[in-house]
Amino acid sequence: MSARVEELLARMSWEQKLFQLQILWRQDPTMQHELARRGIGAQFWPASAAAANALQRVAVEESALGIPLLIGLDVVHGQFTIFPTPLAQAASFDPAVATADARFSAAEARSSGVNWTFSPMVDVTRDARWGRVVEGFGEDVFLASRFAAAKVHGYQGDRLSARGAVAACLKHFVAYGAAEAGRDYNTVDMSHRRLHETYLETFRVGVAAGAASVMASFTALNGVPMHANAALLTGVLKHEWGFAGVVVGDAEGVAQLVDHGVAADEKAAVALAIEAGVDVVMGGVLLVGDEGRALLAPDELSSARVDDAVRRVLALKERLGLFDNPYVDEGAAALTAADARESAREAARRCIVLLRNEDSALPIRPGSRVLLAGPYARSTDHLGAWVQHFATPVAQPVADALAEAIAGATLDVVDGAGFFAASDDQIAEAVQRAAAVDLVVLAVGEPSTLSGEASSRADITLPAAQVRLIRAVAATGTPVVVVLATGRPLVVEDWIEDVDALLVTWHLGIEGPAAIADTLTGRANPGGRLPMTFPRSVGQVPIHYDHESTGRPPRTGGRIQSAPDAELAGPDNTDDYYTSKYIDLALGPRFGFGAGLSYTTFALGPLELAGEVAHAELEAGATVDAHVRIENTGHQAGDDVVQLFVRDEVASRTQPVKRLCGFARVALEPGESTRVTFALDADDLRFWIDDEHVLEPGAFAVWVEDGTARVDARLVVTGIEDDA
Amino acid sequence: MSARVEELLARMSWEQKLFQLQILWRQDPTMQHELARRGIGAQFWPASAAAANALQRVAVEESALGIPLLIGLDVVHGQFTIFPTPLAQAASFDPAVATADARFSAAEARSSGVNWTFSPMVDVTRDARWGRVVEGFGEDVFLASRFAAAKVHGYQGDRLSARGAVAACLKHFVAYGAAEAGRDYNTVDMSHRRLHETYLETFRVGVAAGAASVMASFTALNGVPMHANAALLTGVLKHEWGFAGVVVGDAEGVAQLVDHGVAADEKAAVALAIEAGVDVVMGGVLLVGDEGRALLAPDELSSARVDDAVRRVLALKERLGLFDNPYVDEGAAALTAADARESAREAARRCIVLLRNEDSALPIRPGSRVLLAGPYARSTDHLGAWVQHFATPVAQPVADALAEAIAGATLDVVDGAGFFAASDDQIAEAVQRAAAVDLVVLAVGEPSTLSGEASSRADITLPAAQVRLIRAVAATGTPVVVVLATGRPLVVEDWIEDVDALLVTWHLGIEGPAAIADTLTGRANPGGRLPMTFPRSVGQVPIHYDHESTGRPPRTGGRIQSAPDAELAGPDNTDDYYTSKYIDLALGPRFGFGAGLSYTTFALGPLELAGEVAHAELEAGATVDAHVRIENTGHQAGDDVVQLFVRDEVASRTQPVKRLCGFARVALEPGESTRVTFALDADDLRFWIDDEHVLEPGAFAVWVEDGTARVDARLVVTGIEDDA
Repeated sequence: MSARVEELLARMSWEQKLFQLQILWRQDPTMQHELARRGIGAQFWPASAAAANALQRVAVEESALGIPLLIGLDVVHGQFTIFPTPLAQAASFDPAVATADARFSAAEARSSGVNWTFSPMVDVTRDARWGRVVEGFGEDVFLASRFAAAKVHGYQGDRLSARGAVAACLKHFVAYGAAEAGRDYNTVDMSHRRLHETYLETFRVGVAAGAASVMASFTALNGVPMHANAALLTGVLKHEWGFAGVVVGDAEGVAQLVDHGVAADEKAAVALAIEAGVDVVMGGVLLVGDEGRALLAPDELSSARVDDAVRRVLALKERLGLFDNPYVDEGAAALTAADARESAREAARRCIVLLRNEDSALPIRPGSRVLLAGPYARSTDHLGAWVQHFATPVAQPVADALAEAIAGATLDVVDGAGFFAASDDQIAEAVQRAAAVDLVVLAVGEPSTLSGEASSRADITLPAAQVRLIRAVAATGTPVVVVLATGRPLVVEDWIEDVDALLVTWHLGIEGPAAIADTLTGRANPGGRLPMTFPRSVGQVPIHYDHESTGRPPRTGGRIQSAPDAELAGPDNTDDYYTSKYIDLALGPRFGFGAGLSYTTFALGPLELAGEVAHAELEAGATVDAHVRIENTGHQAGDDVVQLFVRDEVASRTQPVKRLCGFARVALEPGESTRVTFALDADDLRFWIDDEHVLEPGAFAVWVEDGTARVDARLVVTGIEDDA
Repeated sequence: MSARVEELLARMSWEQKLFQLQILWRQDPTMQHELARRGIGAQFWPASAAAANALQRVAVEESALGIPLLIGLDVVHGQFTIFPTPLAQAASFDPAVATADARFSAAEARSSGVNWTFSPMVDVTRDARWGRVVEGFGEDVFLASRFAAAKVHGYQGDRLSARGAVAACLKHFVAYGAAEAGRDYNTVDMSHRRLHETYLETFRVGVAAGAASVMASFTALNGVPMHANAALLTGVLKHEWGFAGVVVGDAEGVAQLVDHGVAADEKAAVALAIEAGVDVVMGGVLLVGDEGRALLAPDELSSARVDDAVRRVLALKERLGLFDNPYVDEGAAALTAADARESAREAARRCIVLLRNEDSALPIRPGSRVLLAGPYARSTDHLGAWVQHFATPVAQPVADALAEAIAGATLDVVDGAGFFAASDDQIAEAVQRAAAVDLVVLAVGEPSTLSGEASSRADITLPAAQVRLIRAVAATGTPVVVVLATGRPLVVEDWIEDVDALLVTWHLGIEGPAAIADTLTGRANPGGRLPMTFPRSVGQVPIHYDHESTGRPPRTGGRIQSAPDAELAGPDNTDDYYTSKYIDLALGPRFGFGAGLSYTTFALGPLELAGEVAHAELEAGATVDAHVRIENTGHQAGDDVVQLFVRDEVASRTQPVKRLCGFARVALEPGESTRVTFALDADDLRFWIDDEHVLEPGAFAVWVEDGTARVDARLVVTGIEDDA
């Protein structure tokens, strides 16, 4: 404990302590100053460096104790320079992308007075209906954990008091991503096993990476709203993991304990939340009213708990260096905008995923006549969900970026359809012009308002007008490339077989259009992979690659019924009738986790690893190295993503059919090869039995995939008796 | 313990014991007899009373110990006389329907040599994608529990050795209905709370009702396949609940522990299952091979466990009276077919649910000219899923039944569409004839092959051809009545607003067409209610009326996007933006649990109950009576279903927004009224905290609904301190 914090704490009244435990959003500067004067602990960013400094000045110079403010803001994928959405970043399979985003975010934010960001969201997401999948790192716990750590490091750097650092906040603790039926804020119910195996793990890794704060989820888990969940906020997070930072409630999340039905009124809600382990209440009624009266009397809250919460808040302020200097240099730009833009462009290029490319429809051949159509041809909606109104306001349309990049080819542009509507004339015009070109690029997608908070969709197809456009243009016979912008995995079943190529571009941020143009023209070679499964139907969700085998694994699917009037029926193969599938869907998803192609081709060498390791050695910290050689066997430079999976063949609990425990993105020139080494450790092979994380001896299938090829090996963990 | 059982057990070899613990399906009589001769414990029914007697004769006269056989069969909703499907029966809100079905099923089955039925399925079901929802009693645990008990009583009667009794089997223990993403056999994951609150409860009630056996589920729950789940099969079912009957595996369910990945081979699987509490293995390799050698040696299984399992099997045979007389009277029909048919017809009438009836489109007015169209006009597919091939083979088409019933009106019949295909000519013909009549009845639906085991659907709309027919006919302006046959809740969003009336008829069994005709013509007045919610979209499932409030309950829905090109957007009401909903769906489901109309009208009087009760009194067994008067205010006799709900206003765990704890179906003549009394007890107000079932003092909203009206009251359970 810091002497300064302890000294301050000793001087604080009950009211002064309580008011440190609140963050409020007020737009009116007079009101903001008044709250600072009265000693509130934290406020949302007042929208400029000058305003932030003025606010800190009131807190330091005019409040009774002179404690500086935490100034918070949701800087999710950029403060001014907007990077790809977090889901897009995960598609890069390159945590350095997240670090770069967070580093520029932190620099831009801190230099404008923000010292606390409510990011990253590290919720594992397996249900594309949920709008907030766009804010996270997808369905896999291993991948999401690496991105969580990378983003925390990017935001916080080595030292929180540095000019380019902000306090990160892991959210939303815990299991928000599992909201029932993909409906935002809905109830969550799961076993301890799944909670530990999947949903707590990204937080555990983020806490180990040093995250300064954690935000409670809006949701109730197994009957206990997370804002009142002492077992997890205090028991697991603070006690078991030793988290010494700040737990903050989400917007009105404490007050909403009344709506959850576990508190009779807001006063009871605040008491419940603070006792459970919430340190800072976001929103709600004032913890200390206008007349200086505390909402809760000293006998209504444990004073030890309040002191602990205040210590955490003051310690964070100290780590941020606010007691020494709460002000920022209003004139300084921490980094040049050009650096940030270049980084954002490189990030955007790395996030694009090529999912189909029949007859090498892409890249665009020099000299081609190209038609660009679709609502994203001229739209500037590239920033994605969770962008502040003050972010660089306008991205370039793809039409402009492509016109610049396509030198040597001719480009025609037509709308063809709006996001939600298309007239017959619009479609006819697109069809007519498509007949006159060598290639049509259809820039379609889900506008960014359809993903993000409170944006769950029951239907995850493209809006019907855009599907009509795709089908009409595809029917001309001119090759069609679809550029799909989206905040979530979409169902593409209605049109995917009709088109020649598909680039999934997510919402790529301010440099998205340039990155798309680079990729269409072959200046950049797509190397991203899917961080979330693209299902065949919304009726197939939740879906995730690391499912268990079931007792009746299917070998075939049902017969597809996508065309009207097709017969609904089981598979032709009657041997496979009583297996786990849908009678109206083909086997598996349309595109699985880790899928992605390249303009070049790669070959994988054999997977080399020691075939045996002793249980005791692993438990003692030994690792098993797995090596694989990757060669670029094509004619262009490109990136391959090699993914290491394991499957525990027989265990005392059912196990995933595959489980990611390593990945690497490698850049290779044509003909070049490289060797990647993965180190498997005990944690890669452990699983949870209730609250215990066990390593069982036995055989494990181990293999590497890169989206195209696969090489297999096997590892035997010799038994405990064999160790003797 | 019975002396006979103990005496037998003392004489049995290891091999003889093990072979009692298996049931096999063999169609070849020679093979069946051979197994009986060698002392197998149970076989599937050999398809006639004579064959069953012959098989028992081999077991008794030619096997070493002379132990008679358990002869099992899935008699799910009728052996020869097929009643409505279980889901349809639940819609009657009248457990006497289930008792009648089970009583006739048992009589027909036992008289033909069956002594063990693998029914009822008591899995609570909240996901309409799952094909087996048709076999259960819907989404509500209270309703399903009452039907479970009623069906057990119907099958087993007062004495299992009676001529008209068979041993019932509660299945599938436990939580099969919660298979992830509604895909049959898929992984199940849930909290202890939900397991106790919802999924175990129907089994607990069924066991309390005396069910002789319980079947393990194919699914894994929280990582432990149910066939290997000692904590639940032995811990909860046998020890905690004191279940003394037989636990049977499902078909190959034990062998499939290998596919689940928890056993290395089938031998290990059998050991795991028996040790976990499975008493009888269904299918798989022989527990005792052709040469008389046991699959597992005595040192590979606990002998106490094997003895316990054998005792349970022999005790069941004794309860069934098989040691005294294993034979049935081959000439006897236990009940006349006419009785069974009359009961089936009355049952079918009671299961029909009227969900829409604009301008009293139904019943058909005398003298009307009526067109009947749609694939169910002439189809005989009325029996529903899980019907044996030897069941009364052919139901009457609706066209024939309606022609008989519609005296005084004229009936034209045309196909209009097949189940999966419709030509333009077919639709044009239906449209043309529709223009010439006063009313069109469209008999449409999901054929019975699309529900039941291994029949999960990702798309739960009507096949497109039928939707085209509905829309085309509705566009003529002639009033349209839809008769919807289905094995699951369907999405009707595409056409419901275009039609005048909707009767949900499920698959009603052999007398279904007659019951439909009775209802269309007004001879019967529909009084059923939905036992499962009809969602607006498959993207809205899983869905159930007794969800929790969440911290952000919605007051409005999103704007519907059902027509192509409609804009996807949030609600008009921006205050309600950040609430728990889908941006592309209106608020709530299309038709909720308990919905249903009548040809007459009802009025509810006030809900009378004491406003206060002491916690200690409830704990001591006191009940609180709630009274409500129902009056038939219309001009026809009819049935109303009054449903009593409670909501715990503030509790230490989140609570359902409504919870059924009483229902009654009452028949009233025009102008007649009656008073219904419900007795609320402690269990109606308790909830689970981990493994504890608690009753907390506080206020409860209490109300009665009948699908149309609602009357409210409030009950305060005074605190523990107040009791002093």
